[in-house]
Amino acid sequence: MSLVSAQAVAAHNNRESCWIIVHNKVYDVTDFLDEHPGGSKIILKYAGVDATEAYEPIHPPDAITTNLPIEKHIGAVDPNTVVKVVKQVTEEDRRRQAMLDARPPIDEMLNLHDFEAVAKTVLPAKAWAYYSSGGEDEITIRENRAAFQRVWFRPRVLRDVSTVDWSHIILGQKSSMPVYISATALGKLGHPDGELNVTRAAGKHGVIQMIPTLASCSFDEIVDAAQPGQPLFLQLYVNRDREITKKYVQHAEKRGVKALFITVDAPQLGRREKDMRMKAVDDNGTAKVQDGQQDVKKNEGISRAISSFIDPSLSWKDMAWFRSITNMPIILKGVATPEDALLAYDAGVQGIVLSNHGGRQLDTSFSGLENLPPIIAALKTRGPWPNPNFSVFVDGGVRRASDVLKALALGASAVGIGRGFLYSFCAYGQEGVERAIQILHDEFQMNMRLIGARNTNEIVPEMVDASALSSRVGLSPPDNLYNNTYQPLSTAQFKNKL
Amino acid sequence: MSLVSAQAVAAHNNRESCWIIVHNKVYDVTDFLDEHPGGSKIILKYAGVDATEAYEPIHPPDAITTNLPIEKHIGAVDPNTVVKVVKQVTEEDRRRQAMLDARPPIDEMLNLHDFEAVAKTVLPAKAWAYYSSGGEDEITIRENRAAFQRVWFRPRVLRDVSTVDWSHIILGQKSSMPVYISATALGKLGHPDGELNVTRAAGKHGVIQMIPTLASCSFDEIVDAAQPGQPLFLQLYVNRDREITKKYVQHAEKRGVKALFITVDAPQLGRREKDMRMKAVDDNGTAKVQDGQQDVKKNEGISRAISSFIDPSLSWKDMAWFRSITNMPIILKGVATPEDALLAYDAGVQGIVLSNHGGRQLDTSFSGLENLPPIIAALKTRGPWPNPNFSVFVDGGVRRASDVLKALALGASAVGIGRGFLYSFCAYGQEGVERAIQILHDEFQMNMRLIGARNTNEIVPEMVDASALSSRVGLSPPDNLYNNTYQPLSTAQFKNKL
Amino acid sequence: MSLVSAQAVAAHNNRESCWIIVHNKVYDVTDFLDEHPGGSKIILKYAGVDATEAYEPIHPPDAITTNLPIEKHIGAVDPNTVVKVVKQVTEEDRRRQAMLDARPPIDEMLNLHDFEAVAKTVLPAKAWAYYSSGGEDEITIRENRAAFQRVWFRPRVLRDVSTVDWSHIILGQKSSMPVYISATALGKLGHPDGELNVTRAAGKHGVIQMIPTLASCSFDEIVDAAQPGQPLFLQLYVNRDREITKKYVQHAEKRGVKALFITVDAPQLGRREKDMRMKAVDDNGTAKVQDGQQDVKKNEGISRAISSFIDPSLSWKDMAWFRSITNMPIILKGVATPEDALLAYDAGVQGIVLSNHGGRQLDTSFSGLENLPPIIAALKTRGPWPNPNFSVFVDGGVRRASDVLKALALGASAVGIGRGFLYSFCAYGQEGVERAIQILHDEFQMNMRLIGARNTNEIVPEMVDASALSSRVGLSPPDNLYNNTYQPLSTAQFKNKL
Amino acid sequence: MSLVSAQAVAAHNNRESCWIIVHNKVYDVTDFLDEHPGGSKIILKYAGVDATEAYEPIHPPDAITTNLPIEKHIGAVDPNTVVKVVKQVTEEDRRRQAMLDARPPIDEMLNLHDFEAVAKTVLPAKAWAYYSSGGEDEITIRENRAAFQRVWFRPRVLRDVSTVDWSHIILGQKSSMPVYISATALGKLGHPDGELNVTRAAGKHGVIQMIPTLASCSFDEIVDAAQPGQPLFLQLYVNRDREITKKYVQHAEKRGVKALFITVDAPQLGRREKDMRMKAVDDNGTAKVQDGQQDVKKNEGISRAISSFIDPSLSWKDMAWFRSITNMPIILKGVATPEDALLAYDAGVQGIVLSNHGGRQLDTSFSGLENLPPIIAALKTRGPWPNPNFSVFVDGGVRRASDVLKALALGASAVGIGRGFLYSFCAYGQEGVERAIQILHDEFQMNMRLIGARNTNEIVPEMVDASALSSRVGLSPPDNLYNNTYQPLSTAQFKNKL
Repeated sequence: MSLVSAQAVAAHNNRESCWIIVHNKVYDVTDFLDEHPGGSKIILKYAGVDATEAYEPIHPPDAITTNLPIEKHIGAVDPNTVVKVVKQVTEEDRRRQAMLDARPPIDEMLNLHDFEAVAKTVLPAKAWAYYSSGGEDEITIRENRAAFQRVWFRPRVLRDVSTVDWSHIILGQKSSMPVYISATALGKLGHPDGELNVTRAAGKHGVIQMIPTLASCSFDEIVDAAQPGQPLFLQLYVNRDREITKKYVQHAEKRGVKALFITVDAPQLGRREKDMRMKAVDDNGTAKVQDGQQDVKKNEGISRAISSFIDPSLSWKDMAWFRSITNMPIILKGVATPEDALLAYDAGVQGIVLSNHGGRQLDTSFSGLENLPPIIAALKTRGPWPNPNFSVFVDGGVRRASDVLKALALGASAVGIGRGFLYSFCAYGQEGVERAIQILHDEFQMNMRLIGARNTNEIVPEMVDASALSSRVGLSPPDNLYNNTYQPLSTAQFKNKL
Repeated sequence: MSLVSAQAVAAHNNRESCWIIVHNKVYDVTDFLDEHPGGSKIILKYAGVDATEAYEPIHPPDAITTNLPIEKHIGAVDPNTVVKVVKQVTEEDRRRQAMLDARPPIDEMLNLHDFEAVAKTVLPAKAWAYYSSGGEDEITIRENRAAFQRVWFRPRVLRDVSTVDWSHIILGQKSSMPVYISATALGKLGHPDGELNVTRAAGKHGVIQMIPTLASCSFDEIVDAAQPGQPLFLQLYVNRDREITKKYVQHAEKRGVKALFITVDAPQLGRREKDMRMKAVDDNGTAKVQDGQQDVKKNEGISRAISSFIDPSLSWKDMAWFRSITNMPIILKGVATPEDALLAYDAGVQGIVLSNHGGRQLDTSFSGLENLPPIIAALKTRGPWPNPNFSVFVDGGVRRASDVLKALALGASAVGIGRGFLYSFCAYGQEGVERAIQILHDEFQMNMRLIGARNTNEIVPEMVDASALSSRVGLSPPDNLYNNTYQPLSTAQFKNKL
Repeated sequence: MSLVSAQAVAAHNNRESCWIIVHNKVYDVTDFLDEHPGGSKIILKYAGVDATEAYEPIHPPDAITTNLPIEKHIGAVDPNTVVKVVKQVTEEDRRRQAMLDARPPIDEMLNLHDFEAVAKTVLPAKAWAYYSSGGEDEITIRENRAAFQRVWFRPRVLRDVSTVDWSHIILGQKSSMPVYISATALGKLGHPDGELNVTRAAGKHGVIQMIPTLASCSFDEIVDAAQPGQPLFLQLYVNRDREITKKYVQHAEKRGVKALFITVDAPQLGRREKDMRMKAVDDNGTAKVQDGQQDVKKNEGISRAISSFIDPSLSWKDMAWFRSITNMPIILKGVATPEDALLAYDAGVQGIVLSNHGGRQLDTSFSGLENLPPIIAALKTRGPWPNPNFSVFVDGGVRRASDVLKALALGASAVGIGRGFLYSFCAYGQEGVERAIQILHDEFQMNMRLIGARNTNEIVPEMVDASALSSRVGLSPPDNLYNNTYQPLSTAQFKNKL
Repeated sequence: MSLVSAQAVAAHNNRESCWIIVHNKVYDVTDFLDEHPGGSKIILKYAGVDATEAYEPIHPPDAITTNLPIEKHIGAVDPNTVVKVVKQVTEEDRRRQAMLDARPPIDEMLNLHDFEAVAKTVLPAKAWAYYSSGGEDEITIRENRAAFQRVWFRPRVLRDVSTVDWSHIILGQKSSMPVYISATALGKLGHPDGELNVTRAAGKHGVIQMIPTLASCSFDEIVDAAQPGQPLFLQLYVNRDREITKKYVQHAEKRGVKALFITVDAPQLGRREKDMRMKAVDDNGTAKVQDGQQDVKKNEGISRAISSFIDPSLSWKDMAWFRSITNMPIILKGVATPEDALLAYDAGVQGIVLSNHGGRQLDTSFSGLENLPPIIAALKTRGPWPNPNFSVFVDGGVRRASDVLKALALGASAVGIGRGFLYSFCAYGQEGVERAIQILHDEFQMNMRLIGARNTNEIVPEMVDASALSSRVGLSPPDNLYNNTYQPLSTAQFKNKL
């Protein structure tokens, strides 16, 4: 591979001829500018210079090599010609570093909320916006959490709970708890090791990770980080080019992945307006791009930028093809109605995830938890439940082991947690994920004792009262004129003290 | 027409003889003072001087000429005698101009709320009060929005949604979306081009505008601004003088208007107390008027000032007469009960709008959306639904394409949006309306894909869960004594950092 | 009557011998100290000096003369011996006077809330506490308001509403609206003319006042202020000494009072803790009283102080006796259950008031409005409704004419408003009451037009939807940990502006 | 017992040899370090020095002597060798002392909330955290309060309520009210006299105290403080070592305790994260402990530290054994389902307490009040209710006599109040408890009069409306974008005033 001087690269700094450096390699992206899912503007910002730092958290390492024809791979940059740029430390960088230094000791993390609170503070604004945003009015993202608080326990007492065991089998794989780690994208936005933090912690504690299609780390990096025999699942966004998908799936199966979760609720990615606004803010700070350039993708945020390859034509007809290319169990992630649950069952797949994509897709869609009872009821028309050949998972809004127990009592096969673990590694890396797992273990032990269930088989429907599950509460008009004059009650006042 | 010197006008500066200048013409309004729907006080403020600036946004250009007998038209003001008054720039003017300059770039508008936020900031207080106010306790205006959040989607997955099409036929006219732009009054209060902003944007993007009776621009100005073949509807307040109404309606039909929407929920305009208070504030700043003057209309706000011509005797008996004067489809705007929906159907009109006048009339009346299911049910007793001869529209509180899809799923023929477009031109003129339309297009595309509907015929009742639609939430007493002592949970604390 | 020097009075300044001056008369209250319903402490504060200013707003003028044996009436104070005390103007007095001067012009009062807002600001703290307080946790006082917002209108359109008439007959008396002014106590706490403000305004505008037993003005003062033929009702707290009650009732009847409203929900006055706290605050500022004095009544507030004469033994058995002493219609004020409504009907009285005493008695008792439908249903078992021989009134929480219309639609005979008028005279005297009446007239006109009722007979059950009337909303736990990290959506941001 | 010099003790100041002084006795706790339920860290803080101050509020006086083998009791410390340490007064100590001095006079305490407000201010942070914390998300602890506000009264009028009597029989014992004082742990954290405050006040006012297993005072101290014949109950945590339990129960019976309340909802203590965080904070301030020490119990809070002896294997099978060791009535505290209520009934115990442990155990478990109706219904299948052989008590969230009346109306045998009395002695010692009792007496008198019940037998189901009892309200998504632009209504504005 030929060596190219940094000065030579620098000459190609415009729309007519645009070269960039990524990981010390030089690429000619002139013809790719208009195809870049994230818009041309962001690439032009790095025209003629090194783009690695911006490229890395958003793309798997091999994204550029697989997308760009080989003749556009110009060569390696000559290291002797590179002028080391001293990175400008911004005020915001300094604030973040100070907060990182001031993080609470990890053993003060008492619940999954704590990780989120730390992550919110130490994450770059862009990463927080991307991870935390929900679709449109963000009603569904909050509903996911709220739904769990509408299911109440009916605890049984005076059972001998000296020994309680919450280990569980998920799609034939052993898990130390009835929880798997659901896929979340772009882990390096939040931590340099990205998804590997999860892989390592999961392996150590007997939990199953679902690898995201949109991981920052490459698929193989993740699998390589796993321990021998550590079970992994794969989340799949189906590509418009089915050959790419086939190669990806079959490679995963060959590498030992145990189940394929096909995302079916994202023919187009949702409007996550916090993320979109962040993109706008970000653009404002960039170098001037020639005026008049019509760049319709400019402020659609990271989410939309990275998702243009997803195929909106995916349909039930494709199921047979999937069956033909893999022997892994196939799970459809994002089913929301009994109608589709039965279609899935009848299509011969091995299960579904009741999910609304973490509240990031269709707004005012129900929580997976609320969809659970009618869907279990529908599946019972096909045979007894639980059904050894068909699994129903739930994800979205889970923060506590008690949330998991509620879903299990209502018939779920297991529960996925995404952001809870994502935030734990954003805050403390691999150690954060391990602590999060430990917290859940503590909570499982206590809650199973308190409801009187000694193993996951004893978590039965009678242990919860879900009669209020559909009592979603709507908006309520404040009584402004009355409240203007109503004087709240107060308790007795302490005496004057100087 | 004779020329009159500004000095001669200035002599008529009192209740005994009151002349004013409007658009360079001089009028003797002495006898009209007590008949002015907005009260005499506001006219006396301009007695003997030029009133154009105050007159213009509140009245169509021809209001004074058609209301004042010809003998009171004194003549034209002699331009040589006019002393150019340098308009005092107030602190508030300066604030508004600064905010106008600081508006976010238009491509950062991501949803219809954004326009409202900008409009709220850049509008004169009086205009904001007039546009934004609702009836009495403003319960209904907020309920309009809240009702949409009580209908949830039941999305279908794995349909091929590579192509989705949300174009629609409304009263036989093609529309690029299942939305029409509903009538809102006095557009020039918010932007110098007033309603023309809407007309031009609507023509460019294939959307239908409903022209308001109380437009700031004259009817003909609006129609003239339309493109050839651009469909327009007309909103009608029925005048106590039916000849005026007849002339108006027939003129509209001649100019090509495609449908007549008769407002039936406003025999008297509502108490919009924000607007009324603004009037009071405004009065305080005006020139001293002789004490003791009893002006009962003084603080009734713009709404009431402009509406005194509306006929409270309008009744079902008038329907035959309307039928006799026009061939346009007749739609009754403001129906709220199945009883009246059936009366409308049986009276032979072509449709109804389930509307509460944007929450500006009867307070604690239901949202149009909540009225939709029982009214569709009632209409089904007259034949299958949808009925090609009868349309049911809904308006009020619509902010998202998803709101529109919910109404359509529940049986609506199409949906009206008023304030959403009004605020978009208050904030950015015609360009604002265009951007608002574009945003809706984006939202329609995404949401139709996510619910699995490829065209508007596929938006079926099964796609929504409206079981909570009537679960309006009431006021709730806070537990002040308890809250005084309850200490909220908090997450782990960061370490001390200087 | 003998003259006593102020110096002679001053010698009796202790618990062993306690004289006070009221309205220039000297009384020996030594033996009365322990019987004083307001406790001895407050009297001892004025031992040996003039107590008129403290006495006046709390007692009718004749309270002391009728309660104290004639031999304790020492004589008149010798005016030549009285040292004119210059009243200390406190900081609080100054603040109140400044706020009185700054009151909004009365024509800016747009609704009954406005009067309450003004009254809250200009009233002495003690008066506000007494008037505004409710029982215990103040749940019921707020529920009274909230209940009206759970009844929604079903408005009818296209009726000829050019003429609407809301005049009404209440217990055979003509009223300009379906509203009477309910009794509230101690009017002089809020305005020097006390209840007379109401009497005069009511007479002028054809509204009926209910005279309170605990008026600051004497019964005869009030009746004397009425116009010839002006109908008046009387509210009665039944005295432990039935002769006093008999005399009072028969005197009222002789003076032309048209109906007797016997309060039945107050065998003991409620815990109004705001009022009780105010008493405590007040006490702290007073002169030192000898320690060790056990005064259990010390901090029970005005309410309890003035009510010790009320007879807790009052029962159904007394009804025959009441019937025997008067021919006025007898109405039981404070009935809350269908069971008691039927007992009242069968006891032969002429009506009931569904009232919870303005939320000042039993907390978590229902609003009168919520009790209305089941009680009307029960009374229908005794014959058709409305029943010419039996009236059902409602009071509590009424702020708008629309509230009144809702109660009428649900079967009420008329509606009582207490605080609404009380606050109007606290804020603006008689003129305030007149303005309040005018506002209600305006609201009646508009709302009757908007619901399509041309007179009070046309206000029918079908005009309201009360299906949510019992949907009282309870307390809801906030999700503190989640809310700590959830970042609210925001609209587009304006650019930086200096 | 041999004398040991303080200097000799000081030599044993590390993990290898750790002596401490408690109440002037020297103990070798080296081998006990790893068994200490509160972790070794806290003991090591006092290695070689006097630990009495830290020991006292958390442990009964005899905890160390009964837990430590006799050979580890080194001897008495030689008083001549002790250097009096002047206790450092911290900023926080000064703040607390100032607030104690500024407490409101006790007669300004008007309700139980007032005591809580004072206690919150004057308690050490650690004590407040321990007392006030609830389980996990603290939903249940607030639900306990909220449930009472969902039961409304149906008051009866015109009954002769001149005499009302709320004295009551509880498990055969006379009580001056239908309330007992429920067990709360570690009273000395809040007041030096700990539980004795309650014992003395209860004896004086005829109320029954339930003695907690985890009292700061020893069982005998408490019993000794009782008056002759004063009835006492005992709350029991069952020890893993049943002999200890047996000895404890039989000793209690011998000392005259009238009933045994066995806690069945705490096989493991709940996650009370406020308490756990406080522990973390506390640890940060302590002396450095050797790094690397793995102390998993380090931040589990007081609750978990003191509860490790509780036996999680306790089950229905143990009931016969309890019956065999005592003749006291046996009550199971913490039953939450009709299933377990019937098991309890059939197991031959004398009653149950519907309790969720003050919201400190399983979160999102129902309030005792909500569990009451279905459990009474279930028990009615075993015979008429009330049943003289079986009692059903309720505790949790009670703040008012009206709360008690609601529970009684729904079938409860009596009601327990814990924190209400706990906070009253934290704020004012014994006098606080007496005042709290007096307040409840006042509230009982008033409320019984207002509902029309003359004794506790007249408190019948028809006096409450519990139809909304299960209408727990869930979380509700705020409408952030709308609220950003909605402008609340306001009342008329006062004029400018300088």
